[in-house]
Amino acid sequence: MATIHDVAKKAGLSVTTISRVLNNRGYISEQTRQKVYQVMEELNYHPNEIARSLLRKRSHVIGLIVPSVSHPFFGEFASAVEHDAYQQGFKLLLCNSQLDPVKEKEYVEMMRRHRVDGMIVGSHTLDVDAYKDIQYPIITIDREVAEHPFVASDNERGGELAAQLLIDRGCKKIGHICGNLHLHMLSNHRTTGFQRVCEQHDTEYVVFQTDLDAFDQSSYASIIADMFTQHPDLDGVFATSDMMAGLVVKWCMQSGISVPDQLRVVGYDDVGHASWMSPGLSTIRQPIQEMGEQAVRTLIRQMNGESVEQKNILPVELVEREST
Amino acid sequence: MATIHDVAKKAGLSVTTISRVLNNRGYISEQTRQKVYQVMEELNYHPNEIARSLLRKRSHVIGLIVPSVSHPFFGEFASAVEHDAYQQGFKLLLCNSQLDPVKEKEYVEMMRRHRVDGMIVGSHTLDVDAYKDIQYPIITIDREVAEHPFVASDNERGGELAAQLLIDRGCKKIGHICGNLHLHMLSNHRTTGFQRVCEQHDTEYVVFQTDLDAFDQSSYASIIADMFTQHPDLDGVFATSDMMAGLVVKWCMQSGISVPDQLRVVGYDDVGHASWMSPGLSTIRQPIQEMGEQAVRTLIRQMNGESVEQKNILPVELVEREST
Repeated sequence: MATIHDVAKKAGLSVTTISRVLNNRGYISEQTRQKVYQVMEELNYHPNEIARSLLRKRSHVIGLIVPSVSHPFFGEFASAVEHDAYQQGFKLLLCNSQLDPVKEKEYVEMMRRHRVDGMIVGSHTLDVDAYKDIQYPIITIDREVAEHPFVASDNERGGELAAQLLIDRGCKKIGHICGNLHLHMLSNHRTTGFQRVCEQHDTEYVVFQTDLDAFDQSSYASIIADMFTQHPDLDGVFATSDMMAGLVVKWCMQSGISVPDQLRVVGYDDVGHASWMSPGLSTIRQPIQEMGEQAVRTLIRQMNGESVEQKNILPVELVEREST
Repeated sequence: MATIHDVAKKAGLSVTTISRVLNNRGYISEQTRQKVYQVMEELNYHPNEIARSLLRKRSHVIGLIVPSVSHPFFGEFASAVEHDAYQQGFKLLLCNSQLDPVKEKEYVEMMRRHRVDGMIVGSHTLDVDAYKDIQYPIITIDREVAEHPFVASDNERGGELAAQLLIDRGCKKIGHICGNLHLHMLSNHRTTGFQRVCEQHDTEYVVFQTDLDAFDQSSYASIIADMFTQHPDLDGVFATSDMMAGLVVKWCMQSGISVPDQLRVVGYDDVGHASWMSPGLSTIRQPIQEMGEQAVRTLIRQMNGESVEQKNILPVELVEREST
């Protein structure tokens, strides 16, 4: 089997140069890089990354825990994280917690055993305590855990923008559907911002929370049905995700309520389907690409022992389409 | 730092038993397992998986290459693969090729260096040749590459079911939007099945292919616009993904065409949003969970040197909702 020395010899380069190409470190001309890859291919040389990890004490692997990449927001977020991690020379180990605390705990432990260099946690099933004692780089998404840095969108501002839009469009009684407020997620601030603006304008509102472990359509559908049964006079809805907002629009269509004429709907996230559903969904845009990038970059700075901001709050933007 | 011997001693068990718990092999009572975990926690013992991988010559890591988990089908597929891999004791390294051949090639090489135990490839950017010479376990999704086993849904039957439904509902001229047929994907058989049924019933149809590297909404939107401009008399559309079908419905709404009264639409996949968009989308259901499971199980059998079926074709199902 070919060694790095064989590659260096055949390429007419030093072992250091080959190593720099492999590790993507320092300046290497594109020509040299191509030459090295070509010789590696000719000699069928495949560096053993596992052995190298042991020597380097770095695996160049980042662990990502999300509830599930089948959820549109987390699918797009995982894609953004993977994209940026790849640019920075890191691989991504993907863990879907499925909101199962046992699975999430096993994953945290597994990642520790596998010596991932750091972890990005977008799940919120485990009690914060489980993450408090973790001694290696970790970034949380939309949740504040001890002193760990977090990345979030400006949730409070998002809630304000949503309420203001609905009030500007003439809504007199607004329904708000949000995640369970006992979970201590930073996304709870969406509700805070929403309520404040409604109160400033003396606009009536009702708040419906999902169950603690609710993350699927059927549980959302029953909350929506409950809300409209108890409050048939709603003329606006602010839902805390585009998925929920989509289900609200569907409920209206099936109930003969015209959107936006009789009821206006605002979502949160601006995932892909918000633009291709009909009517197009007005929503609060989270900068998903930038959030993924910020999480990766902050994590890498942590790994390198650099100081990092604890609170990384990125701006949101109102995107108005046809549903308001 | 605690060793496995310290754990065994404190738990009053043999090193072999501790090892079996760690490797999840052989029968271990729940009581013993709990005891081992408890002692590991007390001693703050974290087995180094990297070192163990080198000894075992197995990393227990599966690599998954998909175009992007932000695409609804691949998000749900990745979630299914991860779920089943976890059940079988494997971790998932996620790679989004973003349909970039350079990135995909680097990933294949990177996975080789990292000694993943096997690879599931749902991307289709690289020329099939790139996968031909791979000597370790690999499963492809919806594509036949040399002798490697593949997992696919029964695409031809799906195309037949879609055409039959539209014809049964009275459509006289059907538009079909599909991926680029030069890509040699098994999903091309959807078109074959669709065409056969249309021809059997003397039903007029037109076929529009996406560009080779098209995977985003804007390119789909322009194909849809072209199709309706050239054929304003269409009364049915079969789109090769639910995402495309959603865009067709949106185009109709914006153009004042009523779905399903004036135009009936069938998608393919049955991803989550097919049921929560409005009108609910009639579609051909791919068994995404089962496809993920089949890919993982077949890959593991390959790793273990067992013989496996090359063609793993899973049945599809027509799900009729409001769009037809």
